[in-house]
Amino acid sequence: MKILIVGGKGTIGSKVSAHFSKKHEVIIAGRNSGDVNLDMADTESINNMFKKIGKIDAVVCTAGEAKWAEFDSLTEDDFYIGIKSKLMGQVNLVRIGKNYMNPGGSFTLSTGILADHPVLMTTSGAMVGGAIHSFVKAVCLELKDNIRINVVSSGLVEDAVEHYESYFPGHNPIPMHKVVNGFVKSVEGASTGEIIRMYDNC
Amino acid sequence: MKILIVGGKGTIGSKVSAHFSKKHEVIIAGRNSGDVNLDMADTESINNMFKKIGKIDAVVCTAGEAKWAEFDSLTEDDFYIGIKSKLMGQVNLVRIGKNYMNPGGSFTLSTGILADHPVLMTTSGAMVGGAIHSFVKAVCLELKDNIRINVVSSGLVEDAVEHYESYFPGHNPIPMHKVVNGFVKSVEGASTGEIIRMYDNC
Repeated sequence: MKILIVGGKGTIGSKVSAHFSKKHEVIIAGRNSGDVNLDMADTESINNMFKKIGKIDAVVCTAGEAKWAEFDSLTEDDFYIGIKSKLMGQVNLVRIGKNYMNPGGSFTLSTGILADHPVLMTTSGAMVGGAIHSFVKAVCLELKDNIRINVVSSGLVEDAVEHYESYFPGHNPIPMHKVVNGFVKSVEGASTGEIIRMYDNC
Repeated sequence: MKILIVGGKGTIGSKVSAHFSKKHEVIIAGRNSGDVNLDMADTESINNMFKKIGKIDAVVCTAGEAKWAEFDSLTEDDFYIGIKSKLMGQVNLVRIGKNYMNPGGSFTLSTGILADHPVLMTTSGAMVGGAIHSFVKAVCLELKDNIRINVVSSGLVEDAVEHYESYFPGHNPIPMHKVVNGFVKSVEGASTGEIIRMYDNC
C-alpha cells in the first residue's frame, strides 16, 4: 500500500510511520519536515500536496492543533485555530483526498480522549474532537468505491506523559504500541465509521 | 426566572417558549421575530442583544443552521455555514452570555440525533452536533458561580415530520411535549454537562 501519513514526524506519527514503513510505502507530510510540505489549515496546501503525490491507498492523519487555555480567556479567534487546523484540516483531507484515493482505500483521522472525557482548559480541543467523531460516522455513509474512514481517539500516550501529565490527573498512559495498533486496525482492517477508542480505565 | 429563548419562534422553540411562559418571564430572540433581534452567526449581534436585555437566569438556544447536502457537493464554505451559526453561534452565546448570567443560572443548547446517528447528507450537521456535545462536557468543568450547562439532542420531532421524514427512514418521531421536557429538565433541574438525548429506539 501507498500510505500518506500527515504529521508523520510527530509524537504519535513517528511511531505509526515506523510501523507502516516495514510493510508499506510511506509518504510523510509535515509542516517543516517529511517528504512533502503541508499546512493542513491551508486548503490550497492540501490541494498541492495531493497533486504532487497522486493516487494513494491510505491517508493517516496524526496532525492538527487546537488552543489549550481557560474558557474565560479563549477568544473567538482562539476557537478558530482548532476549527481551521484539527477540524477542517481533517475534513479537507477527506474532501480533497477522496479524489486521489484508490478503490478500497481508507482514511484514518485522529482525535483524543478529550472528546469523550475532557479536562480543564480543553473546551476547544474537546469540541474539535467531538466534531470529528460525528463527522466520521456521517461521512462513512457517503464515501464511494468501498473507501473506508475511521478515527483513532487515544488517551494520554506514553511518549507525551512528561509534557501533559499535569493536565490529565489520574489518566493511565497508553503504551505507544497500542496506539499504533489503533491505526493498524483502521488501515489494515475492514471497518468503517468506527471511533477506535484507545482509552485505559475511562 | 428570566429566560432568554433564542429561536423561540421556531418549530421546537415555539413549544418551549409556550411552556416556560406559563411560569417564567420569557424573552424571545430571533432573526426576524421575537422580542430582540439576533443573528447568532454574528458575534456583535450577540453582544448587542445581551447589552439590551441585561442579567438573566437562563439561556435556551433552539436555533442555528447547517447546510444539508451530499458530501460530494459540500464546499469548504458550506461547512462554515454550520460552524459559524449552529456551532460558534452557540459557543459565543455561552462565551458572552456567562457575563450576564446570574449565579446558579443555566445554559441549554440544542443539537440533534444526527450527532450520534447521522443520516445521508448530514456530514456538516452531524459534525456541528458532535462538537457541541463535547464542548458542553468540557465547559461545564469551568463555568463559575454554579452556572450550569446542558444540551438537548432530539430525534426527529413530531412537528417536523412532514418536512424531514424522508431523510430519516425508520426514525420514530418524538412528541413535542417530550422534547419540551428535555429543556425543562435542563433549566429547572440540577444537572450540568449532560447530553439530554430525546431519542426513541436508537
